[in-house]
Amino acid sequence: MTMRYRDSGVDIDKANEATRAIARLVRNTWGEEVLSEIGHFGGLFAVPREYREPVLVSSMDGVGTKLLVASAAGRFDTVGQDLVNHCVNDILVQGARPLFFLDYVAAGKLEPAMVASVVTGLAKACRENGCALIGGETAEMPGLYRGGDFDLAGTIIGIVERDGVIDGSRIVPGDVVFALPSNGLHTNGYSLARRVVFEAMGLALDAHVEALGCTVGEELLRVHRSYLKPVTEIAARAAVKGLAHITGGGILENLPRIFPKGCAAHIHRGSWPVPPIFPLLQKGGDVVEGEMYRVFNMGAGMLIVVSAEDATRVPAVADGLAVHRVGEIVKGGGNVTLV
Amino acid sequence: MTMRYRDSGVDIDKANEATRAIARLVRNTWGEEVLSEIGHFGGLFAVPREYREPVLVSSMDGVGTKLLVASAAGRFDTVGQDLVNHCVNDILVQGARPLFFLDYVAAGKLEPAMVASVVTGLAKACRENGCALIGGETAEMPGLYRGGDFDLAGTIIGIVERDGVIDGSRIVPGDVVFALPSNGLHTNGYSLARRVVFEAMGLALDAHVEALGCTVGEELLRVHRSYLKPVTEIAARAAVKGLAHITGGGILENLPRIFPKGCAAHIHRGSWPVPPIFPLLQKGGDVVEGEMYRVFNMGAGMLIVVSAEDATRVPAVADGLAVHRVGEIVKGGGNVTLV
Repeated sequence: MTMRYRDSGVDIDKANEATRAIARLVRNTWGEEVLSEIGHFGGLFAVPREYREPVLVSSMDGVGTKLLVASAAGRFDTVGQDLVNHCVNDILVQGARPLFFLDYVAAGKLEPAMVASVVTGLAKACRENGCALIGGETAEMPGLYRGGDFDLAGTIIGIVERDGVIDGSRIVPGDVVFALPSNGLHTNGYSLARRVVFEAMGLALDAHVEALGCTVGEELLRVHRSYLKPVTEIAARAAVKGLAHITGGGILENLPRIFPKGCAAHIHRGSWPVPPIFPLLQKGGDVVEGEMYRVFNMGAGMLIVVSAEDATRVPAVADGLAVHRVGEIVKGGGNVTLV
Repeated sequence: MTMRYRDSGVDIDKANEATRAIARLVRNTWGEEVLSEIGHFGGLFAVPREYREPVLVSSMDGVGTKLLVASAAGRFDTVGQDLVNHCVNDILVQGARPLFFLDYVAAGKLEPAMVASVVTGLAKACRENGCALIGGETAEMPGLYRGGDFDLAGTIIGIVERDGVIDGSRIVPGDVVFALPSNGLHTNGYSLARRVVFEAMGLALDAHVEALGCTVGEELLRVHRSYLKPVTEIAARAAVKGLAHITGGGILENLPRIFPKGCAAHIHRGSWPVPPIFPLLQKGGDVVEGEMYRVFNMGAGMLIVVSAEDATRVPAVADGLAVHRVGEIVKGGGNVTLV
């Protein structure tokens, strides 16, 4: 018996083909700070010169089981955008702007067309956020991922002036909480959402749902919003004390992460629009309301805390998104109360 | 029917427990440049002040199907070390020293003990390489990963002075190639190696193999070496023109990546020791020699190119590892010839 590497399920030539396709796609995300080319061992990025005390802010994340919806729909560009926008928001909450991004795509069988589609989405979102897609890894792992299974993760590196770090430490009772709207589930709660939609409700991916105004697949694959532009617009007018990206754990778990001691929040239900997917899931799965707010963003994708004085300076619309006043900081032990 | 998030297979409390365990483990990898704490949205790292023109060098990678061996052995700390050391080497080849690392652990079912073991390995290797384990993501994705399946990926960010970037561009015919020894497979070629060892040879994980002097499991889980210390020691004595981390693709594909036009290499078989796992795999799987050198490192984990003049300054031993003179740069079209 003679074995070649290809026999064991790993096709190096195909991997090289995917690498070349990726190289073409990512090159137009690069500015002059990118010093290297794909194919070298590591990506090179010059630290921008305009910072006195540059601080790097980084985040690594995946897109969770939203991937299973993408797989079922055979559509892979939107999850690439989801991943970048999610990561952009995760460092934005500390005041950072994105510099560069790296991705990891792992599959049992590497399909160049699928990888190219993922990277098309990554590159699109990187361009929109002024972020260089500087490198990454495509791993073909037969035996670890089965059939069409794959996973997708990414790392973002951003930068902020040291005295410009936003960390919530100056939040005090009396401050005001604003929300920027989500367009749906974003990238969180998909294990529950899939179970409700596909099992409890028995809906198919291509079923048109009147309440949603679109198919189940279109709703579940809506691209996670980047809040870089609206938050930048708001921060130009009002001093932003704290930002909370509402991901897994919802408002109830994410907002408290930025509270200093002695603070809590009242959030007013009904003060912002809740997209129709959420009542659909709540009813379809008979999910209790507290659980809904602990798993899903419920229409509030990013919360912004400013002083009561600055609250009047927050625009009603930022980068085309309505900005809703949704609550206030109160004295308390770190909890969020829905009122 | 009432659904809670836990019913859908995602346990947020367990995830929080794992996060706390991780926080304790990683804290002792942090120096004063780390400005944030785990639990915030992103990791903060101050750019070191001693660089005139700092360049960030980054790499994202996984450990491939070595994970399946770790899973079968129920041992998860060594793959954490593998991942960090692999990434350290990947940016070292461009002259960078590591600053910080982020990890991604995804599984169908998040077992806190397994995650803690992975992170123990990550933290150990980070400490050894002077690298801060600054953040990461643990994702529980029922339906995407089955049973005990999991994946592990990581991103490293390092730094180098702009005029200190190593890129191979000054390599010329007549230069000398040295090798630092690997201790076995490191992290590459596991799809083929597993097929040979477990299928063609029918060996069990706990089988003691005379030629290896250890069990199959011990051999296959040897920790990927970090070459940070020996390369730093060599670079202090000789001007390093190029470095090639020998990973998937072997010497034949990795060394040419650093050649400028008009260069090729002759590499002398027998000029460095080949660990016994390689002849065992070659014989056991009846693998042709060319394929062996295209898939495995064959005992040469890192190749170092210096001028003929500097070759005499390269120490015989660096950080306890024997340094072997294995070949030379010749005129040619980018190929590596085994002679």
